[in-house]
Amino acid sequence: MSAPATPGIALDAVDTPALLIELDAFERNITRLMASIAGRGVRLRAHAKTHKCAEIARRQLAAGAIGVCCQKVSEAEVMVAGGIPDVLVSNEVVGERKLARLAALARHARLGVCVDDADNVRALSAAARRADVALDVYVEIDVGARRCGVAPGEPALALARSIVESPTLRFAGLQAYQGAAQHVRATAERGAAIERAAEAVRTTRGAIEAAGIACPIVTGGGSGSYLFEIESGAWNEIQCGSYIFMDADYARNEWAAPLPRFEHALFVLATVMSRPTPERAVVDAGLKASSVDSGLPLVWGRTGLTYTRASDEHGVIEVASGARAPALGEKLLLVPGHCDPTVNLYDCYVCVRGGMVEALWPISARGAVY
Amino acid sequence: MSAPATPGIALDAVDTPALLIELDAFERNITRLMASIAGRGVRLRAHAKTHKCAEIARRQLAAGAIGVCCQKVSEAEVMVAGGIPDVLVSNEVVGERKLARLAALARHARLGVCVDDADNVRALSAAARRADVALDVYVEIDVGARRCGVAPGEPALALARSIVESPTLRFAGLQAYQGAAQHVRATAERGAAIERAAEAVRTTRGAIEAAGIACPIVTGGGSGSYLFEIESGAWNEIQCGSYIFMDADYARNEWAAPLPRFEHALFVLATVMSRPTPERAVVDAGLKASSVDSGLPLVWGRTGLTYTRASDEHGVIEVASGARAPALGEKLLLVPGHCDPTVNLYDCYVCVRGGMVEALWPISARGAVY
Repeated sequence: MSAPATPGIALDAVDTPALLIELDAFERNITRLMASIAGRGVRLRAHAKTHKCAEIARRQLAAGAIGVCCQKVSEAEVMVAGGIPDVLVSNEVVGERKLARLAALARHARLGVCVDDADNVRALSAAARRADVALDVYVEIDVGARRCGVAPGEPALALARSIVESPTLRFAGLQAYQGAAQHVRATAERGAAIERAAEAVRTTRGAIEAAGIACPIVTGGGSGSYLFEIESGAWNEIQCGSYIFMDADYARNEWAAPLPRFEHALFVLATVMSRPTPERAVVDAGLKASSVDSGLPLVWGRTGLTYTRASDEHGVIEVASGARAPALGEKLLLVPGHCDPTVNLYDCYVCVRGGMVEALWPISARGAVY
Repeated sequence: MSAPATPGIALDAVDTPALLIELDAFERNITRLMASIAGRGVRLRAHAKTHKCAEIARRQLAAGAIGVCCQKVSEAEVMVAGGIPDVLVSNEVVGERKLARLAALARHARLGVCVDDADNVRALSAAARRADVALDVYVEIDVGARRCGVAPGEPALALARSIVESPTLRFAGLQAYQGAAQHVRATAERGAAIERAAEAVRTTRGAIEAAGIACPIVTGGGSGSYLFEIESGAWNEIQCGSYIFMDADYARNEWAAPLPRFEHALFVLATVMSRPTPERAVVDAGLKASSVDSGLPLVWGRTGLTYTRASDEHGVIEVASGARAPALGEKLLLVPGHCDPTVNLYDCYVCVRGGMVEALWPISARGAVY
């Protein structure tokens, strides 16, 4: 399939729908996050599930990230192939075929993985032994997201012991991500949720260290909360991903101190393909161009235009009375409701600066769900 | 990226998440639709936006479809490259670059397109002239979906006249798709919506023919309504797409006479990757494995298991008290909420028959949004 643009053309000549990165805003977001954690004794392991792009991962490392997180082995394969030397699969990996792939990757980079089950620890240990590699293993504890993870405290200690007993596994610490807190709208409520999570981390770490097991890393934290994790003192590694792009749903959060507000840097460029009535415009970007799981896209920089309905290949935009109506063929910028699954729809980013296409970056891990 | 399976392996050895076609059900769906329209004087132009796969399109043609619909020029490019000789872009195409691509395709296949704007007719005519091709052009009328399309009657006639005046365009008839009716739950209400649409078609066709312009084809109709279109006598071509796969949202419709009930033939195979509590299982298939725009996926063939929450790479399944709980590593079949955008997440279908992988079919038009 051909790309929707080539470097050097004007933004207005980009074919649509296209996924754009506004490079100036993107770079400011990276700088802003690094400035906010400087001197805090915490390292950034940027989440690559957001962007699925080795080019972006390399830029995050150049700005100071120590490595990346992935959610899938296939994402980790793309990141390692792209030269990222330190990758944590911040997720459980189950099944012999996947464990063999994970272990094979550890020949080329430092590889970490999470566990929440003793049988899985045994399978991981065996896979590492067969591949003759060592793996960093983090015990995932459920700090309020009610997804994966063992309960804090004793259950986590029991898993840590089983990891320490394996000659091929290194107990690296705790995975503690409060995903459910990221989109709680009020900043103070997000802070309170992270403080509850911090208590669970402290209890667990205390139990593990009291058993004579070192717990070097506590990793977690997202773009919506990470400075609360840092202020608690319970984490020494954060896993922010969405900060590079922001999306419409994150923007609905209250952004107050201590958290900086990041800028929208990811857009879907769409064309008005039908103007059937004065109050209705239809764009060529629907469900296959912008994921709607966290809400419809927003029309950017145009008052009175509201994206109200998405079907597979269409977006219906209502034109408020008195608003400047878009003409047939006009291009509009949309802010996706949720950046991660939207990125996963496209094969490349069209990177724009000052109204010109500067580069195309392949989304090499698009569709990497295995 | 490696495929999740190879032909000849057992279903249980397929890596996950994977998109499966149950071939027996898929083939019965194709047969069932063709049987339901046999002898009715109506032809099937199957919608390829559902499957995005030339292999499936060729099977639809072998079963009697006269061609396919696409929604995007890039989809049409894939279908023509895959040997489909007759393609209708059942949508408006706007912008010089896209029109040039559309016209270029008409050198290799019969190509049709829809219009709802006089300026667009002029641009289309110029593009066809530059490419030295002829295009079939359908006037899209809004028959109740409130998306694209001109109003029925005189506005459609005016557009038909402008098409007839162009030496490079052939007026092929009307595009009249009542998309909003497809998921109305009660069969009788769907029938009533199609009868209102039929009135709009009759009025419009009458006005066009009264002006001395032949209107050979009226095309439209979806899997949720097509026999009402046929019974009305106002359509002579139907555009069903989802009938091959069905999905959880279509299954929530009432399916009563005259419409046949199609079978689920599309599944997402997922692995239980975490069993953190007795009442919770987490599978490795979330928002990037099954589109949730029309509801969460259903767990297939297992009572008491309910998929209750999707995040990017996780699906949370609640285990009812007394239900057979899935073990860590166990594989589950999910029925996607909405087939079209789910298909658009994957690079290939894993085609299964009798518990064995029979073939892999590439989803060649995945991501073809341009």
